[in-house]
Amino acid sequence: MGILFTIAYNGTRYCGWQSQTNAVSVYDTLQAALVKVLGMDDFSLLGASRTDSGVHALGQRAHLRSNYPIKIPAERLPHALNSALPKDISILGATMVDNQFHPINDAKSKTYSYKIYNHLQRNPLLWDFSAYIPMTLDVEKMQAACAYFIGKHDFAGFCSVGSVVTSTVREIFSLEIIKDGHLLEILVNGNGFLYNMVRIITGTLVAVGVGRISPDDIPDIIKSGERKRAGKTMLPQGLTLVEVFY
Amino acid sequence: MGILFTIAYNGTRYCGWQSQTNAVSVYDTLQAALVKVLGMDDFSLLGASRTDSGVHALGQRAHLRSNYPIKIPAERLPHALNSALPKDISILGATMVDNQFHPINDAKSKTYSYKIYNHLQRNPLLWDFSAYIPMTLDVEKMQAACAYFIGKHDFAGFCSVGSVVTSTVREIFSLEIIKDGHLLEILVNGNGFLYNMVRIITGTLVAVGVGRISPDDIPDIIKSGERKRAGKTMLPQGLTLVEVFY
Repeated sequence: MGILFTIAYNGTRYCGWQSQTNAVSVYDTLQAALVKVLGMDDFSLLGASRTDSGVHALGQRAHLRSNYPIKIPAERLPHALNSALPKDISILGATMVDNQFHPINDAKSKTYSYKIYNHLQRNPLLWDFSAYIPMTLDVEKMQAACAYFIGKHDFAGFCSVGSVVTSTVREIFSLEIIKDGHLLEILVNGNGFLYNMVRIITGTLVAVGVGRISPDDIPDIIKSGERKRAGKTMLPQGLTLVEVFY
Repeated sequence: MGILFTIAYNGTRYCGWQSQTNAVSVYDTLQAALVKVLGMDDFSLLGASRTDSGVHALGQRAHLRSNYPIKIPAERLPHALNSALPKDISILGATMVDNQFHPINDAKSKTYSYKIYNHLQRNPLLWDFSAYIPMTLDVEKMQAACAYFIGKHDFAGFCSVGSVVTSTVREIFSLEIIKDGHLLEILVNGNGFLYNMVRIITGTLVAVGVGRISPDDIPDIIKSGERKRAGKTMLPQGLTLVEVFY
């Protein structure tokens, strides 16, 4: 028997989702709360996405699997767990799934958001939740560049070293920029993302916005597979895992 | 000669705008940055609003007055000061004003925002920036209640003890609720606000939302002038000083 959790967290004070020595992870914090609430530790917990340090989540998913029955009904688990969790992590939902369910392999797509605060001076209320860019950005050009990313491409050039994957081909279903005053939100949905891929795509869109890359160069940059031709890896705090679709 | 600053801050780690012994205030932090940047301390600084501990600002105003000339042009001060300020305070603008200017007395109106996250489980990304209310809120009734607050009233019942004012009459020009998913934003503009007035009005609207107070009872509650008939004082973290109009 398994339970699928929907989890929101403020990633600011965590080393990311995954456990690390000498640092506090979201996984470890949730694991400790589960042990407390379930009264046992004979379970495994697997997250849908290994979000990095400082990256936030509004809809992370994690699959709990146990050979022992969970005595608390799934619908009561969010409240029980939230009482045992710090305020920067929140269980939004819990549903029963069968043991065959796999939170990574069964995911059809994921949506990430990247927020940019585009103003001459920083915004202290958005400091932990956005990248602050004082330079003028040409949002229309950035939007024109978005179109070239959509579809199935080899994103080898949009991936940080250190990730072990069998293929660097991914499909992006949608990529759009929503402008609300000085705030730009880049929303991307795709069937999977390579290590730092969203942050590098955003860095490339920013390079387009400041005029360092032309929108029409994007297909060539993607085709080249060269990391150095794409834009910078943007800071983690602008990134939020919004939703995982099954 | 004087300079009028527009200031944004995340109030989470401050005891509020005003100086207090044994606590860090926004005022003290800004004062220290000004001494550093201007290279002198012969000036006075007066804020437009004494925001409480945990209350945020997107458009606080403060007036700097000095008998000595300020050698840095006003338009260069935001950048210079932001380099000397912590990330949770940001100077958004600075303009020259004459010495007769008074940041409190000359204010024609102020706009405050109060954010409520209305969902069964808390939102960790909005924890420091909203009040979390799990109960179902009838937003239509809350909106109906808003109308009764608009206009010139004696708000003696919507004021915490400890404030010394000659009159408790204030005029509210607009009061509206904007719903965006699970987030409610209460926006109020008025010619002045008593101590905790916005937080008590919001608490009264929440009492309407949960059905404890009927919208049509608002005129009587205002007329009574009794603090205990109004709603609770909402937590400070939901409140943001949005703008001061001159």
